[in-house]
Amino acid sequence: MPRIALGVDLGGTKIEVAAVDDGGDVRHRRRAQTPAGDADAVCRTIVQAVGEIREDLEVDPVGVGVGVAGQVERESGVVRFAPNLDWHDVPLGASLEEALDLQVSVLNDVRAVALGEWLNGAGRNTDDMVCVFVGTGIGGGVVSAGHLLEGCSNAAGEIGHMVVDLDGPACHCGRTGCLEAFAGGWAIARDAMAAATERPDDAARLLEIAGDLKAITAETVGQAYREGDALACDIMDEVARVLTVGLVNLVNTFNPCRLILGGGVVDGVPELVARVRAGIQQDALESARARLEVTTAKLGADAGVVGAASAALRRATQH
Amino acid sequence: MPRIALGVDLGGTKIEVAAVDDGGDVRHRRRAQTPAGDADAVCRTIVQAVGEIREDLEVDPVGVGVGVAGQVERESGVVRFAPNLDWHDVPLGASLEEALDLQVSVLNDVRAVALGEWLNGAGRNTDDMVCVFVGTGIGGGVVSAGHLLEGCSNAAGEIGHMVVDLDGPACHCGRTGCLEAFAGGWAIARDAMAAATERPDDAARLLEIAGDLKAITAETVGQAYREGDALACDIMDEVARVLTVGLVNLVNTFNPCRLILGGGVVDGVPELVARVRAGIQQDALESARARLEVTTAKLGADAGVVGAASAALRRATQH
Repeated sequence: MPRIALGVDLGGTKIEVAAVDDGGDVRHRRRAQTPAGDADAVCRTIVQAVGEIREDLEVDPVGVGVGVAGQVERESGVVRFAPNLDWHDVPLGASLEEALDLQVSVLNDVRAVALGEWLNGAGRNTDDMVCVFVGTGIGGGVVSAGHLLEGCSNAAGEIGHMVVDLDGPACHCGRTGCLEAFAGGWAIARDAMAAATERPDDAARLLEIAGDLKAITAETVGQAYREGDALACDIMDEVARVLTVGLVNLVNTFNPCRLILGGGVVDGVPELVARVRAGIQQDALESARARLEVTTAKLGADAGVVGAASAALRRATQH
Repeated sequence: MPRIALGVDLGGTKIEVAAVDDGGDVRHRRRAQTPAGDADAVCRTIVQAVGEIREDLEVDPVGVGVGVAGQVERESGVVRFAPNLDWHDVPLGASLEEALDLQVSVLNDVRAVALGEWLNGAGRNTDDMVCVFVGTGIGGGVVSAGHLLEGCSNAAGEIGHMVVDLDGPACHCGRTGCLEAFAGGWAIARDAMAAATERPDDAARLLEIAGDLKAITAETVGQAYREGDALACDIMDEVARVLTVGLVNLVNTFNPCRLILGGGVVDGVPELVARVRAGIQQDALESARARLEVTTAKLGADAGVVGAASAALRRATQH
């Protein structure tokens, strides 16, 4: 009989709950709208979904993992700050434990996805791994010698805010030239809108897909790129160039065995992985890339719930 | 009776060997010239110095640690590549173990210094630490959750080769815009010579200290800076600015409890630590710097031998 944990992917618009076995397979799932802004209602929604899934399970789950986009206090499970939910200091872990009578682990959503890739995805069987997720923003998770890096206040992994250009574009974080300000989805959309304005003759396909200049997103650029559109290719060339610089920095810093790339931008332009791989081979220090494998994340749409459940399974195994 | 280990700092010009107790204090020491290029002679020199020190000790040492500037294979103690010594694939660990009949740990010299700071210096009593040494080059060591980061092929910590500027100056590593190419001692010397050429009226003090344009070093700049020389201040302002960018990147990535700065450039301009501290306070993500302390390395000139000995003491304790 496999061990089962429940993984909760708590997003700003939807909550997904899944029963995940210790092989990383999703057995059951429930999805609900996020009652935004109301922490008690969010908690009740999770409790209800967990209850429904438990009825369908043959075994009692070993625990619950919750991934949330924000800062989490490791020991207490208090969500210190979650901008998408407009939460400050919400004791999510304690509330859920009381309501569910199960061990609850709350963790940052990107950390959860990295943990999921490590234990059940593209990071299996390695002890030294760097996961980088290029979505709207850029975040990551690092495993070194079999330990998931958490940091002093559980905030390690903010690699999207690594400055790679002293005079680069402004970032949401207040600095300029962050990796995310070049290669994050929001920056790609910004650059595409600017390029479409500057080069209207080349922008026909982008505008056709998006419908409107202001509706251009990183996804639009990805689609046009896959069709061979010249403007989209120019934009993605620059993304690949700067992303490679950032990832070479990480390879030189961490000397991982495996570098795993995921997130919406990578899913939209899968070729990025091969381009980055070639760039790292050329630019990283020989000693740091000696045993490196660069690969694509595997968990896809299930990454959030599988990652969160992996945290619960891991905790149950370690105690 | 304290436990004693022997620490060897194997440099390109000199070899220092010291007996270090488990409190991090140096009890005895020997120094010798490095018989450059001749690995067997280096080995004999170390064996002789160790023998002389052992005669003076009341207890038998628990082991020997050797710090060497280069790439080391962790398990075997083979020095894969050490440019200063012109070594390739030298089985230093095995040779010394056979000659000394003691457990020998060979490690990268910067890693050794970071270990020494962690166990016996400015990193005591923390489990999450980043050490950055700004000397001729820039290197570092990271401890996360009580584990010293080593990486997949024992090459983690090459933070000097983190690109912080896409269009920055050329680095020795072949890339452009590396942190080291702005703030390493060699880059400071290069910039000072260029500035002295461009602004001859402002360069009087620098030239006076160095004696000659081409003799200007980072040390020259440090001395002039401490005297309030305007040109030296301009150069160090830029070093402080770019160093802060690189260190903020590390804080965002690792979320350490303590950031420890050492090395010749920092020793020459101790004020750098306060400036970087203020810059990090301003620019790092709030979550990543929440519990951060920025401080100066403590081991000074003994860092190499104490660090190497710390590796031996630690290994003896763990087995």
